[in-house]
Amino acid sequence: MTTSIAVLTTGSEILDGRVVDTNSNYVAQKLSELGLKLVRVLAVDDNLDELLGGLHYLHQVADVVITSGGLGPTEDDLTRDMSSRYVGAKLVEFPEARAHLEQFYAARKRVLDPSNLRQALLPEGSQMIHNPNGTAPGFIVTRSDGKIVCSLSGVPREFKRMFDETVLPIIVERAGKTDVIHRAGARLFGLPESVVGKEVVQLGLPKSVDVSYRAAFPEVHLVFKGLDKEKVDIAASMLRSSPTLSPYIFTNSIDQTFPHYISAQLADRNETIALAESCTGGYLGSAITALPGASQLLLGGVIAYSNEVKVRELKVPLELIEEHGAVSAPVAGAMACNVRAALGATYGISITGIAGPTGGSDLKPVGTFFVGVASASTTETKHCLFVNERTYVQRYAAYAALELLRRVMFGNLQKSPFPAEVVNP
Amino acid sequence: MTTSIAVLTTGSEILDGRVVDTNSNYVAQKLSELGLKLVRVLAVDDNLDELLGGLHYLHQVADVVITSGGLGPTEDDLTRDMSSRYVGAKLVEFPEARAHLEQFYAARKRVLDPSNLRQALLPEGSQMIHNPNGTAPGFIVTRSDGKIVCSLSGVPREFKRMFDETVLPIIVERAGKTDVIHRAGARLFGLPESVVGKEVVQLGLPKSVDVSYRAAFPEVHLVFKGLDKEKVDIAASMLRSSPTLSPYIFTNSIDQTFPHYISAQLADRNETIALAESCTGGYLGSAITALPGASQLLLGGVIAYSNEVKVRELKVPLELIEEHGAVSAPVAGAMACNVRAALGATYGISITGIAGPTGGSDLKPVGTFFVGVASASTTETKHCLFVNERTYVQRYAAYAALELLRRVMFGNLQKSPFPAEVVNP
Repeated sequence: MTTSIAVLTTGSEILDGRVVDTNSNYVAQKLSELGLKLVRVLAVDDNLDELLGGLHYLHQVADVVITSGGLGPTEDDLTRDMSSRYVGAKLVEFPEARAHLEQFYAARKRVLDPSNLRQALLPEGSQMIHNPNGTAPGFIVTRSDGKIVCSLSGVPREFKRMFDETVLPIIVERAGKTDVIHRAGARLFGLPESVVGKEVVQLGLPKSVDVSYRAAFPEVHLVFKGLDKEKVDIAASMLRSSPTLSPYIFTNSIDQTFPHYISAQLADRNETIALAESCTGGYLGSAITALPGASQLLLGGVIAYSNEVKVRELKVPLELIEEHGAVSAPVAGAMACNVRAALGATYGISITGIAGPTGGSDLKPVGTFFVGVASASTTETKHCLFVNERTYVQRYAAYAALELLRRVMFGNLQKSPFPAEVVNP
Repeated sequence: MTTSIAVLTTGSEILDGRVVDTNSNYVAQKLSELGLKLVRVLAVDDNLDELLGGLHYLHQVADVVITSGGLGPTEDDLTRDMSSRYVGAKLVEFPEARAHLEQFYAARKRVLDPSNLRQALLPEGSQMIHNPNGTAPGFIVTRSDGKIVCSLSGVPREFKRMFDETVLPIIVERAGKTDVIHRAGARLFGLPESVVGKEVVQLGLPKSVDVSYRAAFPEVHLVFKGLDKEKVDIAASMLRSSPTLSPYIFTNSIDQTFPHYISAQLADRNETIALAESCTGGYLGSAITALPGASQLLLGGVIAYSNEVKVRELKVPLELIEEHGAVSAPVAGAMACNVRAALGATYGISITGIAGPTGGSDLKPVGTFFVGVASASTTETKHCLFVNERTYVQRYAAYAALELLRRVMFGNLQKSPFPAEVVNP
């Protein structure tokens, strides 16, 4: 049995552009992982007739409609009315919903305004959906023909938890999805998605394995899915032994970012890093410290934006800057080496470049940068050119530094061209 | 005459979750600015019958349907077929479209595959929409009842330009919108959106002025719109003289972020900054260097993540850390003061705190942080508590540091409670 699912998002804040709807994308991803199908996403304004019209349209093609939003306490929160009208049930107070509301406010020492009690009114006979992260419970109504409407809070943190804990298990059961979908894959840095796509086709993977890509700049994510675990594993091992793709795989996990991967590796090896960032201005440090536990591996760093700071704080010889320019391999090397020594880290990492939009020259156009990594035994630098907008150049440069660190850590510096040397902007 | 507009997004990458649809949000914002109304957004899979069904559903409520995506050269790019079927016109090659394709490929020294020529086939009698940023032109078809379908590329950079240059002027003309909408507003930091909303209601603004909010954490954006410029200006000046709101307004511009505002002010005053970031790990530096021209004002900084770096690189006395802890006002003060002195900046800015999820104590729970700003004449610090997830604490802390800088720069330190002191998490 196949189950088709649609999402109905409500609320003027989506249609007037104040909010980007990310809840439907969350549903799409979760269903896709399970091999289930989202058939429509529809956004409708806060108007009872329009909402009901939308629901009827969606139920022509979907068995399950998930609604997002409209459960708040104000007059324009109409989802309760829509569902009660849709199945012909009146709204009644659910004691469990009221108790949750009262507890929620009491725990936060806030006064429960009587208008908030509207949120405890649910269609009679509906199944309440608990909302641990917020005040308004959701609910599920079933129509006489078996089609259902699951109504969730529109606040992403609340929506996701309600979807995961209550709605997804119901959908899986309806779909009879007792089959386990097996999943494997990898994440790559340094090849455009189109190139990865072409190379994967060349691999000649088992037919029963479904391949999907996602570009999350500057990472490319590759996921193999299938019911036959052996075939999925074969696909994964074919990928890992591909001479064209494997050098650019930084993790065989399907849900680990590059900063996350490197942090985990450093923590495992009990190693530390120190940063010297010029054109990225702290972006790499910020990406690493966004992850819990960063204090275990990141000692600190220097944002060496001006030449004075490079000289004074990082002890880069002024002659080096005068001879080669601040954006050069020798300066990147000195920055990495000196920040490592100053902070006593296992690795020093440096980035110096021209992020743009101005500051480029014929010899060193905007998008030129150098990354450096120093360890106890070596100092490596790479020249890169990535022509793009300022913040993209900065992100790419931070990733290139992580890539050089990965190659130094695992001793595979010569394995294949360094990503930024082969990028065709 | 009112014109109602709907968006139809096509493509499996939206319904399987690989891509978040941002094009419809762009349309929503642009229309909202002009006082026009987006009535539906619908996402449909790449299937001709489903696409046509979606188009018919949308045209029941909208005069103009804008489609996004499905103009590529592959078999599942069906927008051309959909529109030609919808108005009963056959697809013919448009010489202008073919010339554009050929030039596009020639300019990039790429070979034009014959399959790409599909992109030059448009419904006979349609109006071509030029796509300067990509290969596939768009087009506009008109049905016998006057309703129109505007088909644009789904690539955001291409979509936006095609929408702005061709579709928006047509919509404005259809809507008879020759009226100029006047706009004014402000951006705030340090008050929750709900508090701003309540306070704005208290102001008693002119009735003809439309008020809209947007929370872009941790900023709250407030925009007044109306046809009567005088009334809009009155609303803006009422906001600016509000004793409860004005202390939290950091800019009277409606499109300037806090880092952008502070950078512009520093550049105007020819002043420079140096950063000492602990728990934010480079986030503030990254936010400032994301903007072009940062080298004019940011000399550099120290990511003082470990105590050793605070002592060694920032010369924070070890006794100060031992006596008060690394997360304390005296240490924040010393960090700001010493980074200013070391780098020779007009202002030194510091952040030290516990971003979580671990590391908190009863006395200093997760979310506790101190910000400091040092100038030639003063060193100010503020204690803050913002209980939230790690990356939110980091963003809030970086903004609190900017806020302290703003108060030091403009000498209004005593004007009102410092934001993070009044936040109720």
